[in-house]
Amino acid sequence: MVDLKSFIRTVPDFPKKGIGFKDITTLLKEAGAFQQAVEMLCEPYREEVLDAVVGVEARGFILGSAVAYELGVGFVPARKSGKLPAETLNETYTLEYGTDGVEIHKDAIGNGTKVLIVDDLLATGGTTAAVVRLVEKLGGVVIGVAFLVELRFLNGREKLKGVPIHVLMDFSEE
Amino acid sequence: MVDLKSFIRTVPDFPKKGIGFKDITTLLKEAGAFQQAVEMLCEPYREEVLDAVVGVEARGFILGSAVAYELGVGFVPARKSGKLPAETLNETYTLEYGTDGVEIHKDAIGNGTKVLIVDDLLATGGTTAAVVRLVEKLGGVVIGVAFLVELRFLNGREKLKGVPIHVLMDFSEE
Repeated sequence: MVDLKSFIRTVPDFPKKGIGFKDITTLLKEAGAFQQAVEMLCEPYREEVLDAVVGVEARGFILGSAVAYELGVGFVPARKSGKLPAETLNETYTLEYGTDGVEIHKDAIGNGTKVLIVDDLLATGGTTAAVVRLVEKLGGVVIGVAFLVELRFLNGREKLKGVPIHVLMDFSEE
Repeated sequence: MVDLKSFIRTVPDFPKKGIGFKDITTLLKEAGAFQQAVEMLCEPYREEVLDAVVGVEARGFILGSAVAYELGVGFVPARKSGKLPAETLNETYTLEYGTDGVEIHKDAIGNGTKVLIVDDLLATGGTTAAVVRLVEKLGGVVIGVAFLVELRFLNGREKLKGVPIHVLMDFSEE
């Protein structure tokens, strides 16, 4: 077992001054750390009845797809507005300035589909909460949300009440 | 074994009138088809010495990550300009109107790193050729490029001369 946290790089002043960006690419590129992270993300769900993993664009695609593959289920992308070609359901969420949209193909989730949502980072939780709403509006059941990293000081859990959360590592300092 | 081609949906007039978009999400969401596609993408490389898979944003992340996981190597994202937080090398490529950029973290590929590039679709080949140039400029060796789908009539292979290409299915009709 390796210490996953030691593979996360903090890049100062990205995407803007004063932000210390948690860069996961330094973990992904190391075979052993990447394999271990995927296995640890899967762990709570190995005995669960699960139909699909929803990965959130773009970094959530990377972890979500490997998790879906390892768990032997299908993969459904949640994409930024306008990227999916067929009929979608769209949800908006609030950013620091303005709003953004995320969507899922309407025929990707059916009534009772049991879904695990995967993303790299739990920050303010706005995107993930929007994806939970999408899955539920389509009749799906969110059995959990799994993240590589949580920025605890941004209180993203407040927006995800009632949804079981699985996180591999958290950063508490600002 | 399932017929992977039967899981690809053609969406008419996306992203613009007259284009029949090959939608792979209908394959990804089916557990058996997704697993088989990843295994078939990996097949030629199981006996190769390989250090990393480079996946191309955004749909290439989905397949590339599962391929990296299955082959037991690290994953390196090739992203659109401005998305990666640390120092990058950037390449531009020509679109129908204007140009676009793709980049890789400079420290993600070292001298002699053996790389497999994965993307969902070989169309005109412009993006993939730019990613090949990036890997080679960083000292890496491209041992192959693997795609789920090829649109043979767009002649993308012309731009990838000298690079071994692996494709699971091709669509010849316009």
